[in-house]
Amino acid sequence: MSSKKEKLSVEPYKGVRDFYPEDQAFYNYLLSTYRQVAERFGYVEYHASVLEPAELYKSKNAENEELVNEQTYTFVDRGGREVTLRPEMTPTVARMVAARRRELGFPLRFFSIPNVFRYERPQRGRLREHWQLNVDLFGSKSLTADTEIIAVAAEIMRAFGATPNDFEIRIGSRIFLDSLITQLSLSDDATKEFVALLDRRRKIPAAEFDATLAELGVPLALLSTSDTPDEVRVVLKTLAELGINNAVYDPSIVRGFAYYTGVVFEVFDTHPDNNRALFGGGRYDNLTTLFDDEPIVGVGFGMGDVSMRNFLEVRGLLPVYVPPTKLYIAVAAPEDVSHALMLAQELRAQNVAIAVDFGDKKLADQIKAATKHHIPYLLVVGENEITSGTFAVRDLATGKETPLSRTELASFFLALA
Amino acid sequence: MSSKKEKLSVEPYKGVRDFYPEDQAFYNYLLSTYRQVAERFGYVEYHASVLEPAELYKSKNAENEELVNEQTYTFVDRGGREVTLRPEMTPTVARMVAARRRELGFPLRFFSIPNVFRYERPQRGRLREHWQLNVDLFGSKSLTADTEIIAVAAEIMRAFGATPNDFEIRIGSRIFLDSLITQLSLSDDATKEFVALLDRRRKIPAAEFDATLAELGVPLALLSTSDTPDEVRVVLKTLAELGINNAVYDPSIVRGFAYYTGVVFEVFDTHPDNNRALFGGGRYDNLTTLFDDEPIVGVGFGMGDVSMRNFLEVRGLLPVYVPPTKLYIAVAAPEDVSHALMLAQELRAQNVAIAVDFGDKKLADQIKAATKHHIPYLLVVGENEITSGTFAVRDLATGKETPLSRTELASFFLALA
Repeated sequence: MSSKKEKLSVEPYKGVRDFYPEDQAFYNYLLSTYRQVAERFGYVEYHASVLEPAELYKSKNAENEELVNEQTYTFVDRGGREVTLRPEMTPTVARMVAARRRELGFPLRFFSIPNVFRYERPQRGRLREHWQLNVDLFGSKSLTADTEIIAVAAEIMRAFGATPNDFEIRIGSRIFLDSLITQLSLSDDATKEFVALLDRRRKIPAAEFDATLAELGVPLALLSTSDTPDEVRVVLKTLAELGINNAVYDPSIVRGFAYYTGVVFEVFDTHPDNNRALFGGGRYDNLTTLFDDEPIVGVGFGMGDVSMRNFLEVRGLLPVYVPPTKLYIAVAAPEDVSHALMLAQELRAQNVAIAVDFGDKKLADQIKAATKHHIPYLLVVGENEITSGTFAVRDLATGKETPLSRTELASFFLALA
Repeated sequence: MSSKKEKLSVEPYKGVRDFYPEDQAFYNYLLSTYRQVAERFGYVEYHASVLEPAELYKSKNAENEELVNEQTYTFVDRGGREVTLRPEMTPTVARMVAARRRELGFPLRFFSIPNVFRYERPQRGRLREHWQLNVDLFGSKSLTADTEIIAVAAEIMRAFGATPNDFEIRIGSRIFLDSLITQLSLSDDATKEFVALLDRRRKIPAAEFDATLAELGVPLALLSTSDTPDEVRVVLKTLAELGINNAVYDPSIVRGFAYYTGVVFEVFDTHPDNNRALFGGGRYDNLTTLFDDEPIVGVGFGMGDVSMRNFLEVRGLLPVYVPPTKLYIAVAAPEDVSHALMLAQELRAQNVAIAVDFGDKKLADQIKAATKHHIPYLLVVGENEITSGTFAVRDLATGKETPLSRTELASFFLALA
């Protein structure tokens, strides 16, 4: 039937990824590292559907217009509801916290590792879906909350094997920025241009930055790093007390999202081949007022899987893939499968991860299959082995064989892990 | 600003769920139980985006018409591509396997725990998104593969604490069904009605079943359970050798999807309050021919999170929620926060999960927050504690206090886990 039809492509949808076992193993490594650090800081995991009512992103404010109109996946469901694939997690967590403000205790520490979607034009070669650690702390106006959030970010970097020299934490302030804009009486348009200019500072030549700044009527001296705003000074001091010394004040850190209201930060890769912001976050104090009049203050950050992978790759910190399966049981003949299944069942009961071949093909091809799966050890079940009770465990990388009795097998494999 | 605007609802999108920490903890328990069992059987984890080209579901066959036309989330992206939120994982895994047929070794054992979407009308009160364990074995025609898949399903039930009396594995055969249809020369319409009738058998009175069967011209005797088809007999025999004795032949097990071609099975809850199919699966030998002419045979099953939760609930097998955070550090006064942070840092370095209060509110309210978070222990950092070096660790459930020196703290909490 099928040969007459036109064949389908095996490619995934444009801009999203398939996760084969090696990719998934890396993703699970990210997940468990994130989780371990977040939990040590008292954060608890939450999650939500990728589908959200489209209103959640529309109402926030005008600055999100481009994101909402051009970059989200928004469609109308069969019941006439407008629905969006979440482009970021913060509105969702604000909604969830607002929904249970009476039951939840504050300060509230929440983390999640959701997938988020952006419609990117294919030619840019950018991904339309990525996974993003989100860490948020609700209900504290204390600058210690801002500090803790940055400390969590720094500890995650350390947990991945990064040293303090591998990255720099740059801290800015929206309070300072807002006071500057008021002081200079910048128009709405000039403000927009000014913020965008700050955001681009590291990507353009200094001369171009200075010239554009002068055009906007902003004196360069106001952006001096020696004049650290109070809130940034407090955060830097507490970070230093905690032994985190790779943090600096940077007045050009402003963050894209309009909802930030206080301390903002970005973590920069210091590697010359990858010198850019890895991720960032900051304080946003009014998000829950979308849902009711009682604001719950918040501070948090988001960290994407792709930029973290690039960082680890450049630094040689990517873990080597090790499959969960430790042993492949091959069979000398199809009639030995029953014995192979029994042996596998015995060893599984002792927590050894085992794949069994059903003897559909000859032994050489069974061994080839085990190698393709990257399984480290193989043994053959045949008449000899069943009679003698001794199994030659072959190391598939070296070819070396270790003869083991049936009762010795489990401890041999458990010792590997 | 916000009080003038209309407020947004805190509800999630219709038919999907928010996962607060207790829900997420249960989900993580499902995940780790699934993963542990699957890996012991040599299965490796893969994943894919929830977005798939819409063609993937259209071309399969006419019987999926209702699913594709009425029950999927399908929309056109900003680039004119038709895209679907996957309603099931099997077409995706078939696509991924077809894409790398040369690199992957066979038999290939794959598992994943994706979310899947169905557009259900709201009035039915059914969920539009659920998470589903998918376990698949590719590249073996051996009935041992069918047996192994059923053994994995049985072992998952056991790992959740179910006894063999709690569920029954009912095995049918599409080979038998197809031969019956040929033998009786049933028309396409009659075949459709016959299959649907078999699927409803357990839900309707026996008299109604028998009468409809007679109308279709199918002799009831042909559906006798004493006349077990060969392929089912072999599977039952091997399952018995593995100690799995709660499996039976049931000619009315047919499974909804048209792509099944061999042994099919369903796991039934035996509890009188929940007597229905929990999940099922079977052999599907032609799915990869959507992508090329070389078929890769497959056998697998899918298991939803909601039906598993209901099963565990009815049986009293739901795990009690235990938060990851073991200790809440409260502060006597805001100036003690630095000390609290230092103590927390010391203990975190020894892998204790700790939340710190920043002293925004009075002590009684800090204790209330810890209780709302279900954190088991609390200690207060104040001048006395700093001077004496002794901390009163309070069990928040009993009120009992244990005085511990700074060096004794970590081992106290690590002993809890």
